[in-house]
Amino acid sequence: MKYAIGVDFGTESGRAVLVDVSNGKEIATAVYPYWHGVIDEKLPDTEIRLEPDWALQDPQDYVRVFKNTIPAVLKESGVDAADVIGIGIDFTACTMLPTKADGTPLCDLPEYRDHPHAWVKLWKHHAAQPEADKINETARAMNQDWLNRYGGKISSEWFFSKALQIVNEAPEIYKSADRLIEAADWVVWQLTGVETRNSCTAGYKALWSKDNGFPSTDYFASLHPELATVIEDKLSTDIVSVGQKAGGLSDQAAQWTGLKSGTAVAVANVDAHVAVPAATVTEPGRMVMIMGTSTCDMVLGTEEHIVPGMCGYVEDGIIPGYFGYEAGQSCVGDHFAWFVENGVPASYEDEAKKRGMDIHQLLEEKAAKLKIGESGLLALDWWNGNRSVLVDVDLTGMMIGMTLATKPEEMYRALIEATAYGKRIIIETFQKNGVPIHELVACGGLPEKNKLLMQIYADVIGLPIKVSASKQTPALGSAMFGAVAAGKGLGGYDSIYDAAKVMAHLKDEIYLPNPENQKVYEKLYAEYVILHDYFGRGANDAMKRLKEIKRTSRRGNK
Amino acid sequence: MKYAIGVDFGTESGRAVLVDVSNGKEIATAVYPYWHGVIDEKLPDTEIRLEPDWALQDPQDYVRVFKNTIPAVLKESGVDAADVIGIGIDFTACTMLPTKADGTPLCDLPEYRDHPHAWVKLWKHHAAQPEADKINETARAMNQDWLNRYGGKISSEWFFSKALQIVNEAPEIYKSADRLIEAADWVVWQLTGVETRNSCTAGYKALWSKDNGFPSTDYFASLHPELATVIEDKLSTDIVSVGQKAGGLSDQAAQWTGLKSGTAVAVANVDAHVAVPAATVTEPGRMVMIMGTSTCDMVLGTEEHIVPGMCGYVEDGIIPGYFGYEAGQSCVGDHFAWFVENGVPASYEDEAKKRGMDIHQLLEEKAAKLKIGESGLLALDWWNGNRSVLVDVDLTGMMIGMTLATKPEEMYRALIEATAYGKRIIIETFQKNGVPIHELVACGGLPEKNKLLMQIYADVIGLPIKVSASKQTPALGSAMFGAVAAGKGLGGYDSIYDAAKVMAHLKDEIYLPNPENQKVYEKLYAEYVILHDYFGRGANDAMKRLKEIKRTSRRGNK
Repeated sequence: MKYAIGVDFGTESGRAVLVDVSNGKEIATAVYPYWHGVIDEKLPDTEIRLEPDWALQDPQDYVRVFKNTIPAVLKESGVDAADVIGIGIDFTACTMLPTKADGTPLCDLPEYRDHPHAWVKLWKHHAAQPEADKINETARAMNQDWLNRYGGKISSEWFFSKALQIVNEAPEIYKSADRLIEAADWVVWQLTGVETRNSCTAGYKALWSKDNGFPSTDYFASLHPELATVIEDKLSTDIVSVGQKAGGLSDQAAQWTGLKSGTAVAVANVDAHVAVPAATVTEPGRMVMIMGTSTCDMVLGTEEHIVPGMCGYVEDGIIPGYFGYEAGQSCVGDHFAWFVENGVPASYEDEAKKRGMDIHQLLEEKAAKLKIGESGLLALDWWNGNRSVLVDVDLTGMMIGMTLATKPEEMYRALIEATAYGKRIIIETFQKNGVPIHELVACGGLPEKNKLLMQIYADVIGLPIKVSASKQTPALGSAMFGAVAAGKGLGGYDSIYDAAKVMAHLKDEIYLPNPENQKVYEKLYAEYVILHDYFGRGANDAMKRLKEIKRTSRRGNK
Repeated sequence: MKYAIGVDFGTESGRAVLVDVSNGKEIATAVYPYWHGVIDEKLPDTEIRLEPDWALQDPQDYVRVFKNTIPAVLKESGVDAADVIGIGIDFTACTMLPTKADGTPLCDLPEYRDHPHAWVKLWKHHAAQPEADKINETARAMNQDWLNRYGGKISSEWFFSKALQIVNEAPEIYKSADRLIEAADWVVWQLTGVETRNSCTAGYKALWSKDNGFPSTDYFASLHPELATVIEDKLSTDIVSVGQKAGGLSDQAAQWTGLKSGTAVAVANVDAHVAVPAATVTEPGRMVMIMGTSTCDMVLGTEEHIVPGMCGYVEDGIIPGYFGYEAGQSCVGDHFAWFVENGVPASYEDEAKKRGMDIHQLLEEKAAKLKIGESGLLALDWWNGNRSVLVDVDLTGMMIGMTLATKPEEMYRALIEATAYGKRIIIETFQKNGVPIHELVACGGLPEKNKLLMQIYADVIGLPIKVSASKQTPALGSAMFGAVAAGKGLGGYDSIYDAAKVMAHLKDEIYLPNPENQKVYEKLYAEYVILHDYFGRGANDAMKRLKEIKRTSRRGNK
C-alpha cells in the first residue's frame, strides 16, 4: 500500500491528510491552528499596532504545521514513512512575504522583526487598494493586454498590489528583500531546500502568462522606479506548471516531519484550484464551485477566451494542458453568517435550543417550507461587493419586497436565492463567451450543510449539481498532486488525470433542476437581472455614493 | 369649576378623559378594552370563520365604553355630574355599520347575527379592494372631479368601498339596512337619541364636499344599480360641521353614564382630526403629525388646492372655516415594531434585559451614537405600502447599502430615517402646491418615546418640531369640542379657537434642525428621492411584479 500526504494551509490553521493512493481514501487527518492566527491588531510580542485592513501572518506558523500535523497523521494511521511516496501542498493566495536569498523571512531577522512590512501579507490584507488602483489605471493608460485576462481589473489582494505597498511604505524592506514570494512557494522551498515558483499563483495573482510572461519593465517602472526590475531582482521567470515535481524532501524537512528524505514534493498550488481534480474534474464543461464563506468557481477550457468580469484565466493554471478559468462570489456563506448574527430574533434562538438544532438548521427547515416566490423578496448578493461579473468592491447589499408580515426565514431564503442568481450570471457569462458549462460539481462546507441551498442552485441555474465526496477536498487534491509528483514508478501516477480517475470521488446524490420550480425562478431571476444591472452597471450609483457619504461621515462629517 | 369629557374610540379600546375646561388639565382617565376586540377570525359565539383581510367589531362594545368609562372618571375625579358641561367623541374612521331606522345595528337582530356583513366594519377591514378598484376606475371613466380631492385614488378602507362590498356580497343585508352610518355618528346617536352626520367623516371618507355634496346618482348607479339612491335611502344630505352641537344627552344615555340629561354632546369627529386643535393648531402653516404605528398629517389652508397624492381635503373637515388637508404614512412605528420582532438578535435582547431597558430604548441608544451617513444604509419606508404621495398599497420595503459589518442599530436608524424622508416628500408636495407649512407639531405615542426620531425628523425636514403636551391628544380634543358644544353661556367656549387658546398646550421642548446634520441629510435625501421615484413612479415596477409572483405562488405555484 502506498500513501500520499496533502497539506492544506488555510486562513486560521493548516491541515494534513494522509491518503491511500490506490483509492483516495482519507486515512488520517490532523489540524494545527496557527499560533499567531491572523495578525490584524498588533505585531506579536510588541505594542506595534496595525492599521485597519491589515492582515499578517507568521511564516514560522507554517513550519509548525509541518512539524505538528505530519507526524500526527503518521502516528494516527500507523503508516510507515517509507510508504508515503509524495507530498503536496496548497495555500491561500495571494499570501506573500519578503525573504533573504536563502529563504529566511525578513520578519525572522531581529532588525526587521518590529516592521509590519517584513511579515507575511495574508490574502485578506486589504490595505493595498491605492496600489491596486494605480496598477489598474497605469495598465489602462498603457493599454496592457494582460488586463483583459483578469476581467479588466486586478485586486488589492494580488501580488503586485502588495509588493507596491511595500515599495511605497517601506522602501528599506523592499531593498533588503532578496526575494518576494508566495507563501505557497515558500513552504515548498522549506520542504525541498530549493526555490520553485508555481504556474497557478504566478498566473492568477502575479500577472504572468505562459505565452507572454510577466508585464514589461516599462510597465513596472511606470508604477514606481524601484519596481522596474522587480521580476529580475525579486521573483523568477522560471515558472513551473502545477502537476510537476518541485524536488525531494530535504534532510531537515525529513527531520521535521518524520518522512523519508527525498520523498517527492509537488509544485505548490492554491487551495481552490487544487480542489478541482479532487472534485473529479479534469476536463472542460464541468464547473467546480468551492462553496464556503465566499465561493470560487473554476472551469477548464481548451481555447483562450476573454470573458468579461472574471477573476482570470491561466494556461496550465489548474490542470496542465488547459486554460483554467476562475470566477468568484465574494460573499456566500458570509451572507448567512451575517444574517444569523445580526438578524435572527431571540424567539428563533430559543426554538433552536429547545429542539437541539443549530440556528442555521432551523432557518433552513423554515425556509424550505416556503413556496418559491411566496415571500415576495428579492436581494442582491453584494454584502461584500461583487467579484464576478461586475468586479466592484464598492457595491453593497440590497433587499426589496419587505412587508410587515416578512419573516426571518424569508429573508434568509432570499439571501440564498440571491447568491444563486449571482452564480447564474457568472455561468451565463462564461457560456456566452465561449466557455461551455453543462454540469456543476460542488465542494466545501456549504454543500454538506445546506441541502435547501443546493436544490435552489439547481433550480435557479437549471443544471445538475454533483457533490464532491471528500469533506476536505483541497487537502485531498494536494495529496493527489503529491502522488503525481512521485510518479507511476514509485506507486503514484504519471498525471493528475490518472490520479483523479482513481482517487477523486463524487457522492451518490445529485441535485436535479425541478421544471416547475425553474418556471417561477425564471421570473424572479429576470427581476434580479434588472436590479443587478441598474445598481451594478452605472444607471444608479447610489451604493457608491452612499459609501462615499459613509467615508466622509467616519472622517468626521465635515 | 366646569369640566368636559372626551371619549376616544380606538382600535382595541375606548378611553374617556375628564378635563378641566378652564385650563385643559386632564383630571381623570378610564379605559375600557372592547369585549370582542377586533373580530378577524370568527364571529363571536359562532364557528363562522371570516375571510382574510376582514376586521369587524361589535357595536355594543362602544356602548359599554360609555357605561364603563364615564362613571369611572366621575368617580375617580369626584366631580359632580352637574359640573360636566359637555361631551365629545372621536372615532377611528372609516368604521361603519348597517342599522335599522331607529339605530339598531343589524348584527343585534337575531336574524342577522350570523351574517358577517351585519356587523361593524372596522377601519382596517381590507376586504373591499375590488370595490375600491371599481370605484376608482368608474370615477376616472366618468371624469368625476371629486377624485382630485383625494389625490386621484380612494381607499378600500373608505365608506363606499365597504358599502359596495355589502351590496355585492350580501344584497339582503343592504336591503334590510335603513341606514349605513359611520360608527362615530352612531355613538353620538346613542348619546343623543338623534341621528347626526358629521362633516369630517363625510368629507374624508364618504366623498362629500360642502360645495358639491356627494357624487351623483348616475355615478352610484354605474357602480351598482342598487347603489343609485344610496344617499337618499341610507345616508343623509344634512351634514353638520364639526364644532357644532349634535344635541343633548338622552335620558337613557344619562342613565348609562351618570351624567345629567341634556348635557351638550358635540358632533362626532375622527381621532386624528380632533387632535389638531388639541395640539394648539387652529390656523394654517403648522402641520400636525399624529405619530404612532402609522402617521396622519394634517394642515389647514385658507384656499382650495389640488395636492397630488394626498388623502384628501375637506372644507370644515378639521376646523370650521378652513380647508383641512390630510396626508399620511401607512407605516411608521410599525416599521420599528416589525424590526424589533423580526430583526433584533438575542444578544441585544440579553443586553437590554441586563440593563433593565426596553429593546427600543437600547436600539435608540445605539443608533443615537452613529454619525449621520456612517451606516451607508438607505431604506424606502414602504413596508405597508405608500399612502402619500404615491397612494399605492402594492409598494413594498427596500433597503440598500448593507455590508458584512452592518449592525442592527444601523438598520433600525435607517428605518427611522426612511420615514423622515417620506415625511419630507409629503411636506414638500404640500408646499409646492400652495399649502404653506413652516412648523410641525407632533403628538401620539412616538414623540414621547423616541427623541432620536424627533431630532432626525427636524434635521431631515429642516423645520422646527414642537410636541403636544397631552399624552392623549384625541381625547383632549374631544373634550374641547364638548366644551364648545356647551358654549360660553354654560361655562364652555363659543368656538374651537377659543377653547384651543386655553385648553391646548405644547411641551417646552422644541426640536430644531441642526445645520451640520442637515447638510449630510440633504445628500441622503437626494438618494432617497431617486429610489422613491424609480420604484414608486413606474420606472421599475419590480415591487408590484414580485407581489404578483407572491400571489400566484400562494395560490399554488401553477
